[in-house]
Amino acid sequence: MGIDPALLERRLDELYEIGAEPDGGAYRPLYGPAWATAVERVERWLKDAGLETRRDAVGNLWGRVGGSGKAIVTGSHIDTVRHGGRLDGALGIVAGLTAVEALLRDKGKPKRTLEVVAICEEEGSRFATNFWGSRAITGTIDSVDPEVAAAMRERGLDPARIATAARDDIDTFVELHIEQGAVLESSGTPLAVVTTIVGTAQLEVTVTGQPDHAGTTPMDLRRDALAGAAAMVQAIESIAKSLGKPAVATVGKLAVEPDQSNVVPGMVVFTIDLRHPDLSGRRALEERIRSLCTTISQERRLGIAIRTLQEKPPVAMHPDVRALLARAAKECGVQATEMVSGAGHDAQVLAARCKVGMLFVPSIRGRSHCPDEATDPAHLVLGTQVLTRALHLLAW
Amino acid sequence: MGIDPALLERRLDELYEIGAEPDGGAYRPLYGPAWATAVERVERWLKDAGLETRRDAVGNLWGRVGGSGKAIVTGSHIDTVRHGGRLDGALGIVAGLTAVEALLRDKGKPKRTLEVVAICEEEGSRFATNFWGSRAITGTIDSVDPEVAAAMRERGLDPARIATAARDDIDTFVELHIEQGAVLESSGTPLAVVTTIVGTAQLEVTVTGQPDHAGTTPMDLRRDALAGAAAMVQAIESIAKSLGKPAVATVGKLAVEPDQSNVVPGMVVFTIDLRHPDLSGRRALEERIRSLCTTISQERRLGIAIRTLQEKPPVAMHPDVRALLARAAKECGVQATEMVSGAGHDAQVLAARCKVGMLFVPSIRGRSHCPDEATDPAHLVLGTQVLTRALHLLAW
Repeated sequence: MGIDPALLERRLDELYEIGAEPDGGAYRPLYGPAWATAVERVERWLKDAGLETRRDAVGNLWGRVGGSGKAIVTGSHIDTVRHGGRLDGALGIVAGLTAVEALLRDKGKPKRTLEVVAICEEEGSRFATNFWGSRAITGTIDSVDPEVAAAMRERGLDPARIATAARDDIDTFVELHIEQGAVLESSGTPLAVVTTIVGTAQLEVTVTGQPDHAGTTPMDLRRDALAGAAAMVQAIESIAKSLGKPAVATVGKLAVEPDQSNVVPGMVVFTIDLRHPDLSGRRALEERIRSLCTTISQERRLGIAIRTLQEKPPVAMHPDVRALLARAAKECGVQATEMVSGAGHDAQVLAARCKVGMLFVPSIRGRSHCPDEATDPAHLVLGTQVLTRALHLLAW
Repeated sequence: MGIDPALLERRLDELYEIGAEPDGGAYRPLYGPAWATAVERVERWLKDAGLETRRDAVGNLWGRVGGSGKAIVTGSHIDTVRHGGRLDGALGIVAGLTAVEALLRDKGKPKRTLEVVAICEEEGSRFATNFWGSRAITGTIDSVDPEVAAAMRERGLDPARIATAARDDIDTFVELHIEQGAVLESSGTPLAVVTTIVGTAQLEVTVTGQPDHAGTTPMDLRRDALAGAAAMVQAIESIAKSLGKPAVATVGKLAVEPDQSNVVPGMVVFTIDLRHPDLSGRRALEERIRSLCTTISQERRLGIAIRTLQEKPPVAMHPDVRALLARAAKECGVQATEMVSGAGHDAQVLAARCKVGMLFVPSIRGRSHCPDEATDPAHLVLGTQVLTRALHLLAW
């Protein structure tokens, strides 16, 4: 099955231009004008490739070529983060479309129903709607924020109809994605089959001390919330390192009160993002972090409150799909490695309703969610070829 | 000399009501309506006490009772920080006025010219004008920000006339102030004579790392600017503690980029406020902090830039005034301690043009710049009595 590298690159370029920001990167927030333009562009490509298109109640775009039985689906999300890169989400859509197009041309109609999906939203970078598209597909949206409902109506979508987007007729979902980290690059591996998408816990820690005058309060009389929080940030890093790979812990957000150069900080609020592919590993990480932060607060006579903002269990990819993707890679002449995904993906939501599997291609210097997100063009072609082979094995 | 405790408290209460904020404290920003009302109130009190009043070109309010020679001056600043307390600045004005009033009543006209001043601004909490009033008195205002000039005009003050506020006819300036720290309270001392106002350096540190995905970037591949900054905050605290009293170092402001819970921080900017009463001590503190922060950045492959935002040398109080204040205290039956001021005060600016001295009374729990700023009423009376005695020794 020949994949035209130039066509792949051209389509990625075209999508990347939609929502281009003056200071770099593209931003296609859910239901915004750039988002709508991008969905239209993909719809035209799908139609040109001979697929029958439709949009569901939340704006997921489906391209279908009929066959029997439950559907084989490929694709990814069409929204981006602010200053997003060229490949996150876009690659899975463009590769899926290009793969199906090549298969239809070379192999004729599939035996199984085959679909390409442009999922409306995964990033949560306009509203706190993460996995909006895949949650609609799995029928797990319980409520709609009024702001989101208004944005839907602006695009002609009826929030009351969200439940109609749910599907129980998908057999398998496969997604090609960039790794978004530097693991493949640093080991010189061109392709990976994902074994598990890590479990995540997001905690919010509030440290309270005593705001005092920076000039008149001797060091030993202070209850400095930032000095305490700094000790906690250090401890969190040490714990994740000492537990070893693949545990990660990140303090990404931190705010100081009153945030004045001449006042000893009275309060600090920070987040902790914890990830581990195995639930007991993630819990051990969280347990140790909670315990050490509490000890530090006691030693420093500081108040502490730790609350869980979000908790997602790890999700294993389906063993049949993993085996199939490994076989497809081998048939394309490449030995794929296996790896854990540290990032979240639609596959982890869809796993509740169908068999799921993912392929990763390397990210240059691990860069993602930024304008210098890039992958060696040869790796893009390789990933698309393996996806094409996998779809052929699944649907013909 | 009898000081009426009730009168002192009533005047402090009256001033505190001017600019009262709904959520606590008072705010009397330079040239604002509350500021203007407070100046009018003090002007009336000065007139009622028999002083001749005038306002200078920046709005400093002077109350004068004629005599010969260069003037003996007492007072403090009338502006407050946001959510400011009842005593910072206000005490020095109210105590000075009450002292002079009692002296005129009991001792008649002074031999020396005696003045009470309500300095228009010291806090810099509306504009970045710190020490605006005392800088005008010492003739050291070089330029006027257009916004400040506009605010002056609204109060009928002509920015072109600022130079006329300069004075070279002040002999001695004495100021009663709250300590704003907990040193006196924790040692059970009711009064202190200030020896030196500390030198301050404010630094801004920019730490640059690499923003990365919090899920896909293993701990060992990160260049986390916040983890590095946290190590620096810890080091800064340790260095100040190990140098011992009276060195203090504070990281009061800290901002993270991009400040997202799922992104490894790419940049952190924080301030360091360093204070020490002796210039070589302050420089040693700064030198060690700069060196350790640089080492931490190198160990963690982070970029670092440290710039000096502000630098003020320590200012010694005049030995004659210190001796006089100690004598006045002794004559009032109290053994005053000596201490360094960790906060800045108008006296440090005025020291360039006249002899200066300061008295401190304890702050309950060291609280200041906040609504619970308070001092035992007996200490307020004691401080005012010692100030009265000192003014008597100086002017009669």
